[in-house]
Amino acid sequence: MADQTQKPQALIIGAGAGLSASFARALAQDGYALHLTARNIAKLEPLAVETGAVLHQVDGTDAKGVAELVADLPGELRVACYNPSARQRGPIIELDAEIVRKAVEVTAHGAFLLGQAAARRMLDQPMRDNRRGTILFTGASAGVKGFPLSAPFAMGKFAQRGLAQSMARELHPKGIHVAWVNIDGGIRNASRPERVEADDNPDSMLDPDAIAREYMHLVHQDRSAWSNELTLRPWVERF
Amino acid sequence: MADQTQKPQALIIGAGAGLSASFARALAQDGYALHLTARNIAKLEPLAVETGAVLHQVDGTDAKGVAELVADLPGELRVACYNPSARQRGPIIELDAEIVRKAVEVTAHGAFLLGQAAARRMLDQPMRDNRRGTILFTGASAGVKGFPLSAPFAMGKFAQRGLAQSMARELHPKGIHVAWVNIDGGIRNASRPERVEADDNPDSMLDPDAIAREYMHLVHQDRSAWSNELTLRPWVERF
Amino acid sequence: MADQTQKPQALIIGAGAGLSASFARALAQDGYALHLTARNIAKLEPLAVETGAVLHQVDGTDAKGVAELVADLPGELRVACYNPSARQRGPIIELDAEIVRKAVEVTAHGAFLLGQAAARRMLDQPMRDNRRGTILFTGASAGVKGFPLSAPFAMGKFAQRGLAQSMARELHPKGIHVAWVNIDGGIRNASRPERVEADDNPDSMLDPDAIAREYMHLVHQDRSAWSNELTLRPWVERF
Amino acid sequence: MADQTQKPQALIIGAGAGLSASFARALAQDGYALHLTARNIAKLEPLAVETGAVLHQVDGTDAKGVAELVADLPGELRVACYNPSARQRGPIIELDAEIVRKAVEVTAHGAFLLGQAAARRMLDQPMRDNRRGTILFTGASAGVKGFPLSAPFAMGKFAQRGLAQSMARELHPKGIHVAWVNIDGGIRNASRPERVEADDNPDSMLDPDAIAREYMHLVHQDRSAWSNELTLRPWVERF
Repeated sequence: MADQTQKPQALIIGAGAGLSASFARALAQDGYALHLTARNIAKLEPLAVETGAVLHQVDGTDAKGVAELVADLPGELRVACYNPSARQRGPIIELDAEIVRKAVEVTAHGAFLLGQAAARRMLDQPMRDNRRGTILFTGASAGVKGFPLSAPFAMGKFAQRGLAQSMARELHPKGIHVAWVNIDGGIRNASRPERVEADDNPDSMLDPDAIAREYMHLVHQDRSAWSNELTLRPWVERF
Repeated sequence: MADQTQKPQALIIGAGAGLSASFARALAQDGYALHLTARNIAKLEPLAVETGAVLHQVDGTDAKGVAELVADLPGELRVACYNPSARQRGPIIELDAEIVRKAVEVTAHGAFLLGQAAARRMLDQPMRDNRRGTILFTGASAGVKGFPLSAPFAMGKFAQRGLAQSMARELHPKGIHVAWVNIDGGIRNASRPERVEADDNPDSMLDPDAIAREYMHLVHQDRSAWSNELTLRPWVERF
Repeated sequence: MADQTQKPQALIIGAGAGLSASFARALAQDGYALHLTARNIAKLEPLAVETGAVLHQVDGTDAKGVAELVADLPGELRVACYNPSARQRGPIIELDAEIVRKAVEVTAHGAFLLGQAAARRMLDQPMRDNRRGTILFTGASAGVKGFPLSAPFAMGKFAQRGLAQSMARELHPKGIHVAWVNIDGGIRNASRPERVEADDNPDSMLDPDAIAREYMHLVHQDRSAWSNELTLRPWVERF
Repeated sequence: MADQTQKPQALIIGAGAGLSASFARALAQDGYALHLTARNIAKLEPLAVETGAVLHQVDGTDAKGVAELVADLPGELRVACYNPSARQRGPIIELDAEIVRKAVEVTAHGAFLLGQAAARRMLDQPMRDNRRGTILFTGASAGVKGFPLSAPFAMGKFAQRGLAQSMARELHPKGIHVAWVNIDGGIRNASRPERVEADDNPDSMLDPDAIAREYMHLVHQDRSAWSNELTLRPWVERF
């Protein structure tokens, strides 16, 4: 096997089945050395075998853990992606305050931790293909519209989007591409039958491989034409 | 003095000079019994004397403290307003993670705590003037646009705005008016000369009494024509 | 009767029952001399008698007609309001192109004509109550979200909103307050029973008098705290 | 040469140098038979030779001309793109009403004409690669924010964006992908030296080939993950 540290490095926080697995495969195929994190990495082992990824058991909201992980990555960190989010539904008066606080921390503060750590690495490294690196945040419509009975998710995704905008405005001129991707619909998950659409309603859920192609597209987008927000939505989704 | 508990009760979290003092005076004049909180209430004593307000030393991010304060208020809680926010400016790579976390907690989580506690009180009380109550959040443009070098403020104000939207969609049909007010400019502060505009640039800062009139306008807005977001901006402000 | 030309003048383009009648009454009560236009003014005579308004038979899309009307108004033009809009619903492939063109002209080009003519008058007159005048556009949610099967209305209201934003950014610093008001719901109309909500769904339509109070509020809004867009929506309306 | 009518057909309204030439080349390379329109097609002849495009002298605001052109295209219309727009800058009071009306017609009404005609063709044809066709509108930031001294451009681009949203909501579930692309910056134009950025400010203008790749990306985007709005902006552009 080629020396992995010579490859461009990519880090996905909160890897699992679905979107992150597809993105991992796409990155591996494109020549990236992969680093995947989860709070429990056992489930990621098949994906690690398949993609050559290094697994890291890290909680995305652990400031020290994330900072050290990113600082210690070998080579050049070229792609960093933040996936975790926490939903808690319910009438506003029934929500548990501590769970709400934790939900915003998972969705938004962890995004900050990864964003900051990645920026620190990327700002120090040379341009390749006209960029120092790409930072992607997996968002949702809840970051654009605060739905009823869903305050914690709205708070987290709005905060995450505000973070991404602020970082894009600061870091684009420094050569780091920052994008917030609104995944506006359910993601198909082959391993979970309840997350696969009915035969008579094809492509009514997002194909994780299709999302991964969009993420790779952002990774390669020409710096004269960068997108900082992108919405992806099944053709039959109402909006 | 009339029995204060017979009056409609109004609560302002994070009272100080400026906007909250003006709003307190306007509420008192309109017949409300006032409750003002601050982390240090000594500075509020003159305002308490002037408006008859009861002062409460409470940290707006203290879940238990806020819940108990609101639950214990006498009479009917008709107006609740959340003011606190924390800015921390700086390049993304220089921000202290713990300070960022705390900033979002002050701006957004405290807003949730007040919003939840107020909703609990208001949902149980009868309609008066066709509403059960009004919950106001003091926002900023940072909740609409994430400015560079200002990630923590963007995160907090975005989250607060998402919260307000979610609450408005849930609570408007239940008779509670929820509004997020974007104060898009500096607020004039007679007690701080550096916060007063130059003579040749009149009204380039928001008059806190003018903001208070807008807040009172929301408190009285007809339920057939409620606004859930309102932007206030000096005539000469660029946007 | 006092000399009408000594009063501040107010002009409403596209007056009829409902919102514009309520606004006319509110303006008259506030001391304005009124000018109302319609393509057929016969229906406005009772309102003219009631409010002392002068009626003008003018098509709001007639550039010359609007320009002359506004140029010839006596005294000082302090309030100008544009109401007309044209909806045409239907699948995109079935719309008649000429009707679509005309719809955008009614909703947006007429708004431009009134806005331009009013700005010409207002820029030349002195400040009173810290403003030279107020220009209001009656909008709709269709200016924020393009609904399916409703392209012409979306085009017109979007265009009108773009106009209002451009004018606000140019004219606010010159002392002319420009606001676009999103009327997000049906307007109750006492003279049309089908436009009145059911007894068990009170205030589910906008009370035109409530809208008029909002318009008057904008007319008097302190210039240190101007709103350039305002959304009004019944408490039970989904959004 | 292969029979052009067997190829998928692509139509670009308002072709010229820059973006449309790059898009034409990308489409030709991807196997499309091209149709380009301009009010004066002489300038397009070199591009026609290069890409095999058929040239059509049509005014994009001519309802009959556009409808007939599109109805008469051979084969299957798979891509339709609308480029024209008209800016007119100036203080609101100095704008010529007729020029404003015409500007909105060029930017928005022509977009409707092309959109309608293309939808008529596409709805009748079978799915290929899971779509019946793609309709693209070339937008600008003026469709998101109404800039001062630029009312006609704001009106046109806002209207065009409202049209695109309405069409996307109607036509996506029918298999036609509609997207509005906000080109937020100047487009580099090799044939016009004043439209090329300085050496010390590389990629500060959009590379038309990069935009073309984004358009092609939309043409191939998986229907489980369609974007209906896309913003493209040079890395150093302020926003």
